[in-house]
Amino acid sequence: MYLEKINDPSDIKKLNIKELKVLAEELRSEIIKVVSDRGGHLASNLGMVELTLAMHYVFDTPSDKLVFDVGHQCYAHKLLTGRYQAFQKLRGQGGVSGFPQAEESEYDAFTAGHASTAISAALGMARTRDIMHGDFNVVALVGDGALTGGMCYEALNDAGQSGTRMIVILNDNAMSISPNVGAMSGYLNGLRQSVTYRGVKRGIRRGLSKIPHIGMPVFRFLEKIRDFLKSLFLDGKFFDALGFEYIGPIDGHDLKHMIRILKRAKNSQEPVLIHAVTQKGRGYRPAEAHPDQFHGVAPFLVESGEAREDSGISMGRIAAKQLSELAENDIRICAVTAAMPMGTGLDVFGEAHPDRFFDVGIAEEHAVTMAAGMASQGMKPYVGIYSTFLQRAYDQIAMDVCRNSLPVTFLVDRAGLVGGDGATHQGVFDLSYLRSIPNLVVASPRDVRDLKKLVNLSADLDGPMAIRYPKSGEDLGPGIQSQRDFKIGEWELLSAGNDVMIFAVGRMVQLAMQASIELMGKGVSTGVVDARFVKPMDETMLTTQAARAKLVVTVEENVLAGGFGEGVLDALSRAGIDKPVLTLGVPDRFVSHARTSQQLEECGLSTMQISSRILERVEAMKRWP
Amino acid sequence: MYLEKINDPSDIKKLNIKELKVLAEELRSEIIKVVSDRGGHLASNLGMVELTLAMHYVFDTPSDKLVFDVGHQCYAHKLLTGRYQAFQKLRGQGGVSGFPQAEESEYDAFTAGHASTAISAALGMARTRDIMHGDFNVVALVGDGALTGGMCYEALNDAGQSGTRMIVILNDNAMSISPNVGAMSGYLNGLRQSVTYRGVKRGIRRGLSKIPHIGMPVFRFLEKIRDFLKSLFLDGKFFDALGFEYIGPIDGHDLKHMIRILKRAKNSQEPVLIHAVTQKGRGYRPAEAHPDQFHGVAPFLVESGEAREDSGISMGRIAAKQLSELAENDIRICAVTAAMPMGTGLDVFGEAHPDRFFDVGIAEEHAVTMAAGMASQGMKPYVGIYSTFLQRAYDQIAMDVCRNSLPVTFLVDRAGLVGGDGATHQGVFDLSYLRSIPNLVVASPRDVRDLKKLVNLSADLDGPMAIRYPKSGEDLGPGIQSQRDFKIGEWELLSAGNDVMIFAVGRMVQLAMQASIELMGKGVSTGVVDARFVKPMDETMLTTQAARAKLVVTVEENVLAGGFGEGVLDALSRAGIDKPVLTLGVPDRFVSHARTSQQLEECGLSTMQISSRILERVEAMKRWP
Repeated sequence: MYLEKINDPSDIKKLNIKELKVLAEELRSEIIKVVSDRGGHLASNLGMVELTLAMHYVFDTPSDKLVFDVGHQCYAHKLLTGRYQAFQKLRGQGGVSGFPQAEESEYDAFTAGHASTAISAALGMARTRDIMHGDFNVVALVGDGALTGGMCYEALNDAGQSGTRMIVILNDNAMSISPNVGAMSGYLNGLRQSVTYRGVKRGIRRGLSKIPHIGMPVFRFLEKIRDFLKSLFLDGKFFDALGFEYIGPIDGHDLKHMIRILKRAKNSQEPVLIHAVTQKGRGYRPAEAHPDQFHGVAPFLVESGEAREDSGISMGRIAAKQLSELAENDIRICAVTAAMPMGTGLDVFGEAHPDRFFDVGIAEEHAVTMAAGMASQGMKPYVGIYSTFLQRAYDQIAMDVCRNSLPVTFLVDRAGLVGGDGATHQGVFDLSYLRSIPNLVVASPRDVRDLKKLVNLSADLDGPMAIRYPKSGEDLGPGIQSQRDFKIGEWELLSAGNDVMIFAVGRMVQLAMQASIELMGKGVSTGVVDARFVKPMDETMLTTQAARAKLVVTVEENVLAGGFGEGVLDALSRAGIDKPVLTLGVPDRFVSHARTSQQLEECGLSTMQISSRILERVEAMKRWP
Repeated sequence: MYLEKINDPSDIKKLNIKELKVLAEELRSEIIKVVSDRGGHLASNLGMVELTLAMHYVFDTPSDKLVFDVGHQCYAHKLLTGRYQAFQKLRGQGGVSGFPQAEESEYDAFTAGHASTAISAALGMARTRDIMHGDFNVVALVGDGALTGGMCYEALNDAGQSGTRMIVILNDNAMSISPNVGAMSGYLNGLRQSVTYRGVKRGIRRGLSKIPHIGMPVFRFLEKIRDFLKSLFLDGKFFDALGFEYIGPIDGHDLKHMIRILKRAKNSQEPVLIHAVTQKGRGYRPAEAHPDQFHGVAPFLVESGEAREDSGISMGRIAAKQLSELAENDIRICAVTAAMPMGTGLDVFGEAHPDRFFDVGIAEEHAVTMAAGMASQGMKPYVGIYSTFLQRAYDQIAMDVCRNSLPVTFLVDRAGLVGGDGATHQGVFDLSYLRSIPNLVVASPRDVRDLKKLVNLSADLDGPMAIRYPKSGEDLGPGIQSQRDFKIGEWELLSAGNDVMIFAVGRMVQLAMQASIELMGKGVSTGVVDARFVKPMDETMLTTQAARAKLVVTVEENVLAGGFGEGVLDALSRAGIDKPVLTLGVPDRFVSHARTSQQLEECGLSTMQISSRILERVEAMKRWP
């Protein structure tokens, strides 16, 4: 096996093309083996194998900088840069991250996780090189999916004009997470096919040169084929307009060709864009056939491609189904997503109402303002985006939606701690960044039943609302019976207590209930309130229940700074209710990849930790009365 | 005068071209008169007069939707849509806003203020029309400056592919706030000049048709001029790649031509982009000569163009000067801005260190991540952006800078209440959205002396920091003497008090000092602490001083939700210090245009209100002991 002998990328340079091809297959096997065991990103990584090898063959890392956009296509890179062992624990505590992490390896030039940042970061590096009179190369690797993000354009525009020496490799697999959308996608498709046209062009020219008398007839002919010529001349027109030398399209699996092109680009003194066409899922049949289903996967059986375990109830899918039903009788309801129709479950809505479903590509900012435009003319748009990616649209939520009090509802998926995707994907800031925006209702359901009720409520609300929930949820059933109905801003007292009252948000309600039972067993009478609306708060219930308790506790799956707990402190302070408050939440640091349960523990938010932290405080109150 | 007879846009259609030209000059005079009196945006509005007239001549508002990007070029539009009287109080309490406001008039289809949103909003409107089977027209008016913003590209990409009927007018004056940057700018420049080339092309063609025997020699000639032909064929290539029909460039001051083109575009069933070239500042000499200086202006003398009053000390300029000095001996220091070199004062840095100054255009997201890329390779970038526009880069600050703890410093200008620019420009969210991000130091100086010290501190800090300050500041002088030096996280006790301790941030420190003097006069012993670091807090000083006081007060020019006051509540709660706390700040709503002093009053933050609200609370505490 060659892979075992690769200690660092310099070992790659010792292999010939034939050997590199064998190494490529070894990398594929390793990636399939580990991802099938631990979950992760499969299809994109299988597509990137040869491209990664070619990059490491031509460039000298870590002095040359390889910047991976999004970063979930870096597995081969990690395997080739001394992380073979740690890769076996991919995405787990102590194992490698599924994304490039500067603190993990000097070969990871820039930490990534969100899309469309690589060209900006690479340009910053290239400019630094020029200021510092360094001589390294900078290569940004961007997928065609990420290219729908406006940041890419901002960066190309800046880089193209400044003429800074750098290389952008466009890894074009015609997919982001789902099949790509947007005019750019069609444009790239045209470029891909232009290889054939080039041959045709040569033929025409040869033909023409044999005609003895041409003159005006030929000129007219040329005029006629003007559109055709135009299509020829327009190769790379978009990137050309932005000041980049365009090279491509190239088969991204053809190692020899890729190496030759990369060497050529390396010698250029100007910004170069290489258009490499790759196949997502390459080398693993089920992933080749269904690359979107094998984008991000849970552990699966290699033989069949089937998931090893049930992934639980998808909260997004529940919301989408509910929405689809509402939309049957309400033409105003439509759905918008930013390249995550499957992840958010909104594909369900899209199937039911294709004319009212809009996937705008990786373009969160546009998604939100486009929805605002729709709402301004009478629609009732639902924007489904993961919590961490919605950060991209903070300004648009505030200025375009909430400033105008427009009835846009945000379905904030993947809220809270997310497990294996780690620090760049935690949905633990949304309560803070959403709470600060006027006019916005911010809610979080404790289970799938309440999620449906919240979706119903939002449909009747003439203003903006955000509903945040984790990837998978539960039907808590009649055990924790909800009230028949509730209004905006209405909390629910789930159990009474004389000593401690816990106000919990979202799935923390379940943990709070369990903690309260433990505390009861230890003689501490503890009640629980489901604070399902973080904004507006149910100040009547808050003040009434807080006034009765000896200790008020808040529990949220969000950073404490600016979160629900601080809101409770403020409300109690304004109401003049003077009770000790214990705020539990995610501490003021980024939380790395691990299992969600491990992350909860790291944050002191496991059921046992919640009860013991409360008990500790209760004991302290007894000691210092 | 025609202008007085325009009650609504339908009256415009009654005029002929000659009369429209007279009306155009009347509009110019009116705009110059009012802006010279009240301040506002001048140059962009003068450039837009004919374009606005042509739009209203061809389209039927309010059923047709005109969406102004950014919106500071809507003055002629406001004057033509029944707001002549309210325009006299432009940007003032009770007068019209300087930006389109849906709540102000049905003719303002979409509220704007930040750049690059119009195409997204317009596409949303157009899609709504199609879903609802409406038949109105949607026109987005975008400046070439705003076109550097990635959102525009995201929206063009989406619109171009979906083929939704809509019109984008590119108002190309080769300027955003300052001269434009980026490859797109050069590209548009090329398009502007291509009008001449068209003539040349016609000449060549005519010449060729007269040659009797051509054949290979001509073909070779054609080959030679291939590059030239290419430049001809490439007209509009960028927009063409994005699926838009490109029309232009057109003289945006030629009413007759503009009207003809708009009528043609109105009949198109596809997305159309019209490239109109206009002159910023048109019709007012000083503004034509220095359009950047007349972008946003304070009241000025019409004859000379000179400002009527001193604009105070520019905090940004102070910071930029300090930075320039530091950069003399530190090659790592560089500065980045997003189309606001003059507004942020960073042009001063650019003059001193042109090779280390980067204006990336209206592209806040790219600016921040580019800076992160620089910092990752050893630079010490300073990113100067207004508080309200930095909202655009919340995700990049969190993920690309702070997640990596990179030493990027944000010079957050226009923080706090901003006066005439109103709701879309208030810098009252930054403490909330920045405080929630781990690793970030968040500071605010009380005067220019401390600003310099903070800049010095940031230069030595190996991590991210934000320094937020208003447009203009004061040198408080030795009256409120700063400590010689202070460290990160160190507050300053300015005066002692036994009853009340006020913890104030930024320019609120001055108001707090004055309020404390008033309170002293009323027998309430009041001290003041300058809480210059909102994060990390000086917990020692906070707990010590809070423990001594009977009432703790926080004052900040930021929304209360997630702001400094809540942070204080949390810190006191964690420290087990049980004192009543009064948090003063901007309430949970958007604050409209008015003078800053009026806005402070609206928020209950004038000196008198601060002291009376404290007094009220002190009295209440006496009644309910």
